[in-house]
Amino acid sequence: MAHITALDTLDVRFPTSAQLDGSDAMNPDPDYSAAYVVLRTNHPAGHHGHGFAFTIGRGNEVQQVAIAALAPLVVGRSVDEILGDPGGFARSLTDDSQLRWLGPEKGVMHMAIGAVVNAVWDLAGRVAAKPVWQLVSEMTPEQIVALIDFRYLTDALTPDEALTLLRRAEPGRRERADRLLATGYPAYTTSPGWLGYSDAKLARLARRAVADGFGTIKIKVGRDVEEDLRRLKVARDAVGPDIGLAVDANQRWGIDEAAQWISRLAPADLAWVEEPTSPDDILGHAEIRRRTGARIATGEHGQNRILFKQLLQAEAVDVVQIDAARVGGVNENLAILLLAAKFGVPVIPHAGGVGLCELVQHLAMIDYVAVSATMSGRAIEYVDHLHEHFRHPARVVDGRYQAPRAPGFSAEMLPASLRDHTYPTGSAWRTRKEHEN
Amino acid sequence: MAHITALDTLDVRFPTSAQLDGSDAMNPDPDYSAAYVVLRTNHPAGHHGHGFAFTIGRGNEVQQVAIAALAPLVVGRSVDEILGDPGGFARSLTDDSQLRWLGPEKGVMHMAIGAVVNAVWDLAGRVAAKPVWQLVSEMTPEQIVALIDFRYLTDALTPDEALTLLRRAEPGRRERADRLLATGYPAYTTSPGWLGYSDAKLARLARRAVADGFGTIKIKVGRDVEEDLRRLKVARDAVGPDIGLAVDANQRWGIDEAAQWISRLAPADLAWVEEPTSPDDILGHAEIRRRTGARIATGEHGQNRILFKQLLQAEAVDVVQIDAARVGGVNENLAILLLAAKFGVPVIPHAGGVGLCELVQHLAMIDYVAVSATMSGRAIEYVDHLHEHFRHPARVVDGRYQAPRAPGFSAEMLPASLRDHTYPTGSAWRTRKEHEN
Repeated sequence: MAHITALDTLDVRFPTSAQLDGSDAMNPDPDYSAAYVVLRTNHPAGHHGHGFAFTIGRGNEVQQVAIAALAPLVVGRSVDEILGDPGGFARSLTDDSQLRWLGPEKGVMHMAIGAVVNAVWDLAGRVAAKPVWQLVSEMTPEQIVALIDFRYLTDALTPDEALTLLRRAEPGRRERADRLLATGYPAYTTSPGWLGYSDAKLARLARRAVADGFGTIKIKVGRDVEEDLRRLKVARDAVGPDIGLAVDANQRWGIDEAAQWISRLAPADLAWVEEPTSPDDILGHAEIRRRTGARIATGEHGQNRILFKQLLQAEAVDVVQIDAARVGGVNENLAILLLAAKFGVPVIPHAGGVGLCELVQHLAMIDYVAVSATMSGRAIEYVDHLHEHFRHPARVVDGRYQAPRAPGFSAEMLPASLRDHTYPTGSAWRTRKEHEN
Repeated sequence: MAHITALDTLDVRFPTSAQLDGSDAMNPDPDYSAAYVVLRTNHPAGHHGHGFAFTIGRGNEVQQVAIAALAPLVVGRSVDEILGDPGGFARSLTDDSQLRWLGPEKGVMHMAIGAVVNAVWDLAGRVAAKPVWQLVSEMTPEQIVALIDFRYLTDALTPDEALTLLRRAEPGRRERADRLLATGYPAYTTSPGWLGYSDAKLARLARRAVADGFGTIKIKVGRDVEEDLRRLKVARDAVGPDIGLAVDANQRWGIDEAAQWISRLAPADLAWVEEPTSPDDILGHAEIRRRTGARIATGEHGQNRILFKQLLQAEAVDVVQIDAARVGGVNENLAILLLAAKFGVPVIPHAGGVGLCELVQHLAMIDYVAVSATMSGRAIEYVDHLHEHFRHPARVVDGRYQAPRAPGFSAEMLPASLRDHTYPTGSAWRTRKEHEN
């Protein structure tokens, strides 16, 4: 019988701040990073599971130590037992009574749990010889419900209601999976819109995005309202009237400021306004939405299912932006997909960074095949950064994510990438240090 | 000019799980721990600042590494500059654009910021030769407002409104400070009520609590409703009709379950019901409060000022339970005290663990002298654990906290206690290991 024999961690960082890729109103100089985990086994086929928490540089070592703190709960356990009850496995991590104090279910410790849970799903996909989106989409409604921790959810969604939603989507599963494999899932792109880019670069990248088949592009805003209006005009002129223009304020505003600023931007015909204020401010998002009538989006910093439940209960959001590496992994994201389906709000996942596109495409595809059963009004964020470091990179063709076919969760980074970007000893960082000296 | 010359960290743990001290429905076997920080300076008087994040055992090393991650933002800075603008200092930690991703402003990274900010207040008290409660209470309203980060707060509390509240409390400050020094601040105690204790021990400790002058005791509930009813009867019989009986469910319930369970307990005439559900569930607390009519208390796991703002806006709480070591230190707790004063809700701080009584007494006393200007309906939690490890332990006499007189924040642990409880090399842990072998 196979067991988990080791939980290895790595501090992997990419010096992206040198290019201003990823710059926005709150994150001027991110170094996209992964606190990376490999679950090793003595499975006869040599299987292992890869996962990571995404950070933007400093503090990645904290995230790494948090993942390592979970090793005693994982190493030595039976692979069959874990893969036979992934819901029980995830709960065994969130339920550790001492570690729970560090959240509960939020921040560094919860992201660490998400990384390990996702690594288990990567392992599960490899053992089943299926990509994770397909593995989950082929489970029975009862099996999917058993993956979810319904604690603190049942006032909005009971296990029985979840079963009903999943059964409703059961009939067309095979057909939708075939369509996914044939034509993929729509993407939108943030590549043109970083705050650090010049107007000329914005226009050039926006035109290229349209040529590449994207139906929506997203612009970072929130530093200066006149500058935002100018950049939105540059973007609109570049893409024409039929392309969606979304804006992202990255939590820059208080409630009154958000309402006023968004009202100024409204004539630009916005697809949505993303993260107008603190990700924790459920009532604030509801108030901004009520006062502006704008379509409000949030979720990439949403700490857990309990926050998403309340955003939906308070009618605070028009777009639920799940993130694959913020909450407690696939299991908790399934809870969020089901909550969104219950409330009839579309899920448009957050991606970018390093590896987030690779992971979250699986979740959107599960949503399509097994939960909401529609792609209407939906798209997965796409940013064309750092995919070359993955063994099975996300592939976007003509503005659509191609459904992954490789077994696992697309989480594995190439050995050379891991080696060169290990912080601070890898060659990418030694070279940079030499430049600075 | 003096500078911060080092930020030292220690992993300090007490093997409290051996005694079932601190056992409740969610935390069956805590090992009370501190991720401890010392800010060293080259101040001519040899001053240093002590602080800590409180945890309950496993993961304390994660908290320690998170504190260490702040060293580059602190070491080398001028002591005068930091103490001249503690608000700016606190913001310089929460604003680090890369570390911010790990929260934002919640969980391990935010608790680390709280530990360092509190260590700066300990240093400030030593430099000013005053206890922190007195130091802050003697600041002008303008100086206190400058300590606070009002981002995401102004829809509920503007700087001008905070000024008005502080000015309203200005006239009687001296008189109230004198009264504090003469007669202290009321305490309530949780010592009798841990779930792991027998009925006989509960009754004995409850009677002793009354004899010791406490006006309210708190009982842990949530494992079994019949057992809770029995234990509440044991407690009521022991203390008589005039002593307040509060209960604490430690997040055990979902919304419906909470409403039903609390309705069963209601005949016991409860002073408050603490943490009935997830600390993140603002709307859930409001719903439980509406359905039961019980006095709802929460806050010890409240992640930041934005959560407290919403709890008050949603009319979800009757009692605001600040914690000295969960949010971003003294500064953010001042924001929460002012929010509570604005909404007219009493603050009854959480304490216990290790060192929480020592710290939070200062905050309640600031509330009394400079913010709410009343002790009515208020008390500070007291648990008689581990005080002997502190240089200036909290002192409760006849059920009242005595106002600290020593300079600083009462945060410093004794060198021998730090040495013996350093994990895993200290003698307290080596001895335990030998017992186990």
